[in-house]
Amino acid sequence: MAHDIAILGASGYTGAELVRLIAGHAGFRIAGLSANAKAGQKMAAVFPHMRHLDLPELVTIEDLDLSGVDLVFCALPHATSQAVIAGLPRDVKVVDLSADFRLRDPAAYERWYGQPHAAPELQKEAVYGLTEFYRDDIAGARLVAGTGCNAATGQYALRPLIAAGVIDLDEIVIDLKAAVSGAGRALKENLLHAELSEGYHTYAAGGTHRHLGEFDQEFSAIAGREVRVQFTPHLIPANRGILATVYVRGDAKEIHATLEAAYAREPFLVTLPFGELPSTRHVRGSNYCHIGVAGDRVDGRAIVVAALDNLTKGSSGQALQNANLMLGLQETTGLTAAPVFP
Amino acid sequence: MAHDIAILGASGYTGAELVRLIAGHAGFRIAGLSANAKAGQKMAAVFPHMRHLDLPELVTIEDLDLSGVDLVFCALPHATSQAVIAGLPRDVKVVDLSADFRLRDPAAYERWYGQPHAAPELQKEAVYGLTEFYRDDIAGARLVAGTGCNAATGQYALRPLIAAGVIDLDEIVIDLKAAVSGAGRALKENLLHAELSEGYHTYAAGGTHRHLGEFDQEFSAIAGREVRVQFTPHLIPANRGILATVYVRGDAKEIHATLEAAYAREPFLVTLPFGELPSTRHVRGSNYCHIGVAGDRVDGRAIVVAALDNLTKGSSGQALQNANLMLGLQETTGLTAAPVFP
Amino acid sequence: MAHDIAILGASGYTGAELVRLIAGHAGFRIAGLSANAKAGQKMAAVFPHMRHLDLPELVTIEDLDLSGVDLVFCALPHATSQAVIAGLPRDVKVVDLSADFRLRDPAAYERWYGQPHAAPELQKEAVYGLTEFYRDDIAGARLVAGTGCNAATGQYALRPLIAAGVIDLDEIVIDLKAAVSGAGRALKENLLHAELSEGYHTYAAGGTHRHLGEFDQEFSAIAGREVRVQFTPHLIPANRGILATVYVRGDAKEIHATLEAAYAREPFLVTLPFGELPSTRHVRGSNYCHIGVAGDRVDGRAIVVAALDNLTKGSSGQALQNANLMLGLQETTGLTAAPVFP
Amino acid sequence: MAHDIAILGASGYTGAELVRLIAGHAGFRIAGLSANAKAGQKMAAVFPHMRHLDLPELVTIEDLDLSGVDLVFCALPHATSQAVIAGLPRDVKVVDLSADFRLRDPAAYERWYGQPHAAPELQKEAVYGLTEFYRDDIAGARLVAGTGCNAATGQYALRPLIAAGVIDLDEIVIDLKAAVSGAGRALKENLLHAELSEGYHTYAAGGTHRHLGEFDQEFSAIAGREVRVQFTPHLIPANRGILATVYVRGDAKEIHATLEAAYAREPFLVTLPFGELPSTRHVRGSNYCHIGVAGDRVDGRAIVVAALDNLTKGSSGQALQNANLMLGLQETTGLTAAPVFP
Repeated sequence: MAHDIAILGASGYTGAELVRLIAGHAGFRIAGLSANAKAGQKMAAVFPHMRHLDLPELVTIEDLDLSGVDLVFCALPHATSQAVIAGLPRDVKVVDLSADFRLRDPAAYERWYGQPHAAPELQKEAVYGLTEFYRDDIAGARLVAGTGCNAATGQYALRPLIAAGVIDLDEIVIDLKAAVSGAGRALKENLLHAELSEGYHTYAAGGTHRHLGEFDQEFSAIAGREVRVQFTPHLIPANRGILATVYVRGDAKEIHATLEAAYAREPFLVTLPFGELPSTRHVRGSNYCHIGVAGDRVDGRAIVVAALDNLTKGSSGQALQNANLMLGLQETTGLTAAPVFP
Repeated sequence: MAHDIAILGASGYTGAELVRLIAGHAGFRIAGLSANAKAGQKMAAVFPHMRHLDLPELVTIEDLDLSGVDLVFCALPHATSQAVIAGLPRDVKVVDLSADFRLRDPAAYERWYGQPHAAPELQKEAVYGLTEFYRDDIAGARLVAGTGCNAATGQYALRPLIAAGVIDLDEIVIDLKAAVSGAGRALKENLLHAELSEGYHTYAAGGTHRHLGEFDQEFSAIAGREVRVQFTPHLIPANRGILATVYVRGDAKEIHATLEAAYAREPFLVTLPFGELPSTRHVRGSNYCHIGVAGDRVDGRAIVVAALDNLTKGSSGQALQNANLMLGLQETTGLTAAPVFP
Repeated sequence: MAHDIAILGASGYTGAELVRLIAGHAGFRIAGLSANAKAGQKMAAVFPHMRHLDLPELVTIEDLDLSGVDLVFCALPHATSQAVIAGLPRDVKVVDLSADFRLRDPAAYERWYGQPHAAPELQKEAVYGLTEFYRDDIAGARLVAGTGCNAATGQYALRPLIAAGVIDLDEIVIDLKAAVSGAGRALKENLLHAELSEGYHTYAAGGTHRHLGEFDQEFSAIAGREVRVQFTPHLIPANRGILATVYVRGDAKEIHATLEAAYAREPFLVTLPFGELPSTRHVRGSNYCHIGVAGDRVDGRAIVVAALDNLTKGSSGQALQNANLMLGLQETTGLTAAPVFP
Repeated sequence: MAHDIAILGASGYTGAELVRLIAGHAGFRIAGLSANAKAGQKMAAVFPHMRHLDLPELVTIEDLDLSGVDLVFCALPHATSQAVIAGLPRDVKVVDLSADFRLRDPAAYERWYGQPHAAPELQKEAVYGLTEFYRDDIAGARLVAGTGCNAATGQYALRPLIAAGVIDLDEIVIDLKAAVSGAGRALKENLLHAELSEGYHTYAAGGTHRHLGEFDQEFSAIAGREVRVQFTPHLIPANRGILATVYVRGDAKEIHATLEAAYAREPFLVTLPFGELPSTRHVRGSNYCHIGVAGDRVDGRAIVVAALDNLTKGSSGQALQNANLMLGLQETTGLTAAPVFP
């Protein structure tokens, strides 16, 4: 029998991606959809690509009936999530897609997000949702914090290398190229087609991007010492995709072998043959992440490149993967569709 | 138990789309894949987005083992198909995605394709593959001819209107906007990103596009008299999608009611509420076709707009829908995934 | 000696395009730039591509010093222009890029724009700015009304044909494909890159687009009888360009000869050889308009296709061409730069 | 009086860009255009955006009449240039846009290009064409070697910093994002719109890109010791633009001040205010290069980002700038048009 789930904030891109994925998932039934400004509308009006689906109408969170609901996906804006989740019944499991519960340290949260956390008890309870590295904790969790999409990409490239001690921890540069859907459906000048198409640029440069909080927390924990990477994201004229080019000091072959071993049994993390590097077009619309390694002509240096779809593996696909674990389903359910190319 | 199928010409875009769809189809097993120039390669080398799939290696048609194969998808170039299909064992069913068997009249074939047909016996036997209008014939067919992607889009907009006699048959204009994947993976200057992106234009204008042969054949058959539409395709800087804007003389409300009634029970043809018109972004990567009708301020005139994904509903999705029928499976199997947006 | 000019509404795309063109124009000096919300900012902050130019700071219209200014370009939003222009000194010439003075008939204005005109006296005085057809009037005008960009494109395809009586006036269909910069820098969901890229669709269908007011006014005046065309615009995932595919009944060769003769001496209107059709990528960033004609296999029918850059020939380039005439300069000054391709 | 010039290889993108720029240059007259495969055609057939220009017909190099020609732009493929230029009359000046004369050391040439140089005498004579750093040599040169477009971008970001000794020479990483026109008009699968649009990836990774030869030569010469940077280019779904994100160790403020001082009088190199970073959309179609600097939260690290248009400042604009110098004209002639945005 299918589990009833609800999606809070269903009118954004990650909400829509959740509906798309769950529509093809036999184990889940969408029992409720909330959206603030668009409450009262049908999903088909907000997202006409869902016309053929039989979906509940959008309602406000207050009007959402959660009786019988086993799990809630919370795709609300950052800072809104914490208050809303604090108010949910304790017997409902929660996968949060916002940034609110990614950082375990309240001080780190306040430093990166500019305000004190409103639900520090929940913050303690939340499990970091990078599935492949927190699988057991996620399976037993009540509240899972979806990772940043950029943060996920960088970690897939680096975690096994830091854990194995095969790279220099003081010279890590992550140059990341993000497609525009990661910025959400917000109305901003630089997200207009006329501005972005045929133009690309850095954003949040200089170590100011909030996903650095996740890198700091996770990489330092793995290394057992403070690790501070350099990280510069770029906005690219494409709709879906993240490509992280990671510059490291270490032996390229050893790096490749380490990643290959770490991900040998992972259903969604694909290590390419040595020297092959991934492209975003080969993961689009899917939950797969492709990772490649190449040496450099400068001795002792290498690059690791990871590519994934920010809306799927970087966000809603990850959320579903975690939800599967939390409800005792097979982890890959509803997530194995092949990428859409071209 | 799953049916074994094979795909001839698996290294093109329609071949890749077939693999993508069938990879999520429980009733089919891909037993063989052929490609001429790329024989000997793995699919993952030709299409790295399929790296995670366990697929047979590409071989030449000659090396393809068809024993145990129930059905072959033939995604070969136009004019190549007819010879190849003539050589296949008679107990293998065939869905052909080329233009070779779309026209029933050998003279019409020669006029539009510039050469006599090499397998006129097969041509007689072939069923035209516009599923919703040839469902019973397809279910019993050995050879089904996939329609042109442009031809399918125009027919979805017009067939019920011609059948019901609600539009003037002598004043039909189809202005069609096609995304570039419809041109295939051919290496042509006008398909380069630098040429096409930020540029759009007509092609095969003036009534020279070969899909007109299909319009002529089908519309005349429905009307019981000769029907000759005007049809101008345009190449648009997008990867997937066809949008057909059809200008007709008739009563808009009656036209809408006619389409709505005709498609009321169709799983993939969605008639939008009167006055709403579709967008290609709402069908991308899916087997759905959205159709809208609007009246005009010029009395007695209306437009019908149909949108579909050329690689899915316009080609490989249609092929799979037909294969399901031919093998006695539920028609929609493997085809109900929601569109990928954004 | 250079003429001093000012630009009202310099923070939008047409304002920016005016600055770009005038920056390379020896006869004009930019003496003032206004912008409401962005008053107090430097142009380089609003449009960093102008960093290298020495431009006046943006001020409110109230703070603009017009002493010594010979001509004002008014690139304000529709409905705002009429009040502003009514308040300008009478000795300043005006080129208005808004829709406010395009329609000569106050009743037509009210019908298409939903409100009575606030400056009917000025409306009477304004000259319609389609340079090639109102050249002498423009040269002597104080107030010139820039045309709609779609309206200009359709008229270039049709005016000589209507004047010469070589097409059927009751069966004209204009199917138009417009790039997104024509929608301006407004923050709307459907203008986001994630929405528009990889998606295209009709807008203002069914004879509701306001540029129809211009078609009605102009075509009827030429024909000496009421002419009502069908006109459906489409939004295309590209930044600059308009392509109008016009379906007409008439002799294709005669149509071509008529256009070729009409435009033989026009510096910016290029009639292509018979059978060749234009592409938007061949006019981008320029003041040129390419026009082609092809016959149809349906006897007595033809298509005329016109392509131009909406921001240049369709708007700011036209405005500059008119300003040149109004100030007694050579019409082509500052406008002959070749298109930017690729 | 205008100088007569000729362009060899006028049917490629850099050739077309040269024609576009020179068409607006009062001091040059295009006296001859060559193209191999397309000899006998008009430029308007190869590049319809030039229809309005009165240009010589394309001929083979053999048929090109160079009498009276003062300067030849050679836009031929790499390895072809050296033989052709060796055969030109000695009294004709040459700006070569290929890679053939960029490297002064024959051994370096052979290592990076895989074959011995065919004209080592000319190689010795050639001046490296990075205008701002070889201005005097270029003014007196007979043969100038246009730089690689990626190489130019990286050097604009780094040369003054290496010269001033304000960065660590052993930890320079250049992560570069290149638009597709840099790959030329070659027919390759990965340059198709359907492949590249909505996809991006590294190419020539691992220190194999040939422009590294230029970096090595130039940076080592400035530093007076061997300098080996890491350099990874990426192919981005856009038509024009290069964005180089350069990671360095040094004091960000000092780096910014160094660049600002170095480029204070340069007409085309614009240093942005500290902390502002450039976008490719703000230099498109122009000869301007924008350079920005930001510090990093990791102490002692900074990024320098440079953006230019690969076809203009990165190639044909640079060539024209050098030709101006070689013929005694003002360096900026024909090159000051503002960028085309949006």
